[in-house]
Amino acid sequence: MALIVQKYGGTSVGSLERIQNVAKKVAKFVDEGHQLVVVLSAMSGETNRLVDMAKTMQARPSKREMDMLLTTGEQVTIALLSMALQERGYDAISYTGWQVPIQTDEVHTKARIDSINAEKIRQQLDQNKVVVVAGFQGVTANGDISTLGRGGSDTTAVALAAALKADECQIYTDVDGVYTTDPRVVPEARRLDTITFDEMLEMASLGAKVLQIRSVEFASKYQVPLRVLSSLQDGGGTLITSEENTMEKPLISGIAFNRDESKLQVLGVPDKPGVAYQILGPIADANIEIDMIIQNQGQDGTTDFTFTVPRGDRAQAQDILTAVAKILGAREVVYDDAIAKVSMVGVGMRSHVGIASRMFQVLAEENINIHMIATTEIKISVVVQEDQLEKAVKSLHQKFELDKA
Amino acid sequence: MALIVQKYGGTSVGSLERIQNVAKKVAKFVDEGHQLVVVLSAMSGETNRLVDMAKTMQARPSKREMDMLLTTGEQVTIALLSMALQERGYDAISYTGWQVPIQTDEVHTKARIDSINAEKIRQQLDQNKVVVVAGFQGVTANGDISTLGRGGSDTTAVALAAALKADECQIYTDVDGVYTTDPRVVPEARRLDTITFDEMLEMASLGAKVLQIRSVEFASKYQVPLRVLSSLQDGGGTLITSEENTMEKPLISGIAFNRDESKLQVLGVPDKPGVAYQILGPIADANIEIDMIIQNQGQDGTTDFTFTVPRGDRAQAQDILTAVAKILGAREVVYDDAIAKVSMVGVGMRSHVGIASRMFQVLAEENINIHMIATTEIKISVVVQEDQLEKAVKSLHQKFELDKA
Repeated sequence: MALIVQKYGGTSVGSLERIQNVAKKVAKFVDEGHQLVVVLSAMSGETNRLVDMAKTMQARPSKREMDMLLTTGEQVTIALLSMALQERGYDAISYTGWQVPIQTDEVHTKARIDSINAEKIRQQLDQNKVVVVAGFQGVTANGDISTLGRGGSDTTAVALAAALKADECQIYTDVDGVYTTDPRVVPEARRLDTITFDEMLEMASLGAKVLQIRSVEFASKYQVPLRVLSSLQDGGGTLITSEENTMEKPLISGIAFNRDESKLQVLGVPDKPGVAYQILGPIADANIEIDMIIQNQGQDGTTDFTFTVPRGDRAQAQDILTAVAKILGAREVVYDDAIAKVSMVGVGMRSHVGIASRMFQVLAEENINIHMIATTEIKISVVVQEDQLEKAVKSLHQKFELDKA
Repeated sequence: MALIVQKYGGTSVGSLERIQNVAKKVAKFVDEGHQLVVVLSAMSGETNRLVDMAKTMQARPSKREMDMLLTTGEQVTIALLSMALQERGYDAISYTGWQVPIQTDEVHTKARIDSINAEKIRQQLDQNKVVVVAGFQGVTANGDISTLGRGGSDTTAVALAAALKADECQIYTDVDGVYTTDPRVVPEARRLDTITFDEMLEMASLGAKVLQIRSVEFASKYQVPLRVLSSLQDGGGTLITSEENTMEKPLISGIAFNRDESKLQVLGVPDKPGVAYQILGPIADANIEIDMIIQNQGQDGTTDFTFTVPRGDRAQAQDILTAVAKILGAREVVYDDAIAKVSMVGVGMRSHVGIASRMFQVLAEENINIHMIATTEIKISVVVQEDQLEKAVKSLHQKFELDKA
């Protein structure tokens, strides 16, 4: 008997029929003698419907009220799944985030989990109940409803698995595992049986979109075995574990890419100590995630800062930078929304040299211009023009032979 | 400056445009210097949509999960109204039932309010905020979400008004006040400027459907001045107050009727002390509201019990009675769903005799057969065949000259 936390995303609960399918899947595990905690997202499309209503009401909707509004989505699905399980003869009980409770900080729409009290859930499991928990949501110390941001249901599932010391956390999604790259772009992309947390973190943060990055961090920190599987077809999916458990270490595990970024540049900044903080501090204060950062020293005592942010935050970041640039006496702030990032990820890079130059060579052969480069121990990222993204991914996948096991 | 609790029903918040109209109405009161607490229902149609989903999942949906599901309806409208108010420059904050908190008992789908802690609301009012509260919902001592039953938003509003010692509780609805009877049945029906709590209780419990009965009880108990108004047009509506404030006491204030009842009969019950309790106790235990009760002694040492229950509860009541009848050795249990109740209500009855006989005379002239009769100090009710209901109401309204002020 194992304690399993399962998470089903919006597509998996996208219709009443699909919720009944989830009930069937959950029932199968209960029949096998396992204890089940099930974390659900809102029905696919529901969040967008609610966001549209909010925007009709308020040009820039209040974040507190947005959380109040959006959390109704999961509250609907947890009630419906509990009913479906009960109809099949399985005792089930649903909990919202505040009922568990899942305590978060006060940053509405992007809250972070402070703590989870798993006592209530444990009591229900001891009474042989399936516990169905609303993903994505929590409650602040103040008693306000908060949300963890898009994809936050994954984080809820992993955090619950950690709090409950679950044997495995299974993330059911509409793909059957983690691929070497997006199969919609490269049909030859191959499913990976295992991947390390470190690799997955790089893949997720770069837009592999299978799992939310914070959920992988959580899983890595608390050593929760994490498995990505399809809710629609059977199969073992991809197991994400710590590096020690990985026997083979391929040179490159996968190629991630992200279209949802914008490049911002602050040009002609007087080059004095502390300017980097003066420029990037206010962006971080506004809770905008900065991805790549490059600083280029000029020859006239000025320096240029280039960095990337999520495209949806670009306008706000630009406003902040324009104000900061004025104070610092910088020349100008420019931006480019038509960029994309491509990253090659692999723990094998640690013990191999020459991957980067081989990557640049492939891109050069395809006449793809590189805007920015950033590297870590297990990743090389380049920013290219958005319309050259697919060509870049395809040629790298082929030249590095990722289609071959 | 007054403290006003306003409640807007499902029709008043039935679309995004209507929610903006509510924001406009609320803003007008704030501009006049009043403090506002606004209680909202779910958008009209939303509750039915959710109930339909639940029934797809479970033949007899779990009541706890039903409450979990249905309470999302108001959570959506309170967030949207708060946004709409903020967009107009009015500071607003929304609260669900558990956030207030509105503590209830554990009877899911039909919970009763145990207590309200109005401290949080008061603090927000002191900061000049409009407080928008989800109607219909509360929280049990256990931390489960509960609902007050259909129409429960009225009760929420009155209970909040009592807890806050508000100057007035205004119930906005799709009618502009309380009428002598339903204008859809009798076009000559006339709006009443005032009505007493007692009369309103009789009207509401009999299906006038303008206000939920419990809200009127609450208002009467805590002496909360209650006003029913239209959310769509201007006008003073109908003020409901205690009798002392009513100058004129008309003989008959109005004619209420209710189609949503069924008649149940337990026939041939051995006539011993305690049988009434043995029969009706289990019905009450099942939280089924019994309306009229008649006991007829037979000549063979048996007695017949006849009573009415809400039509939706008839099947359950019948099941219970069939079991009880077997134990008691009663002859049989029969029912009739095709009945309706007509009631004439008026505080003036207290000081006038002959109203009842005049009523029976009118019905006799129209060839309407009376199944059951029940009277109180200010009300005479008769049960008739459902297909004769409209004729009964029309003729009584005309013969008692209720169309004349």
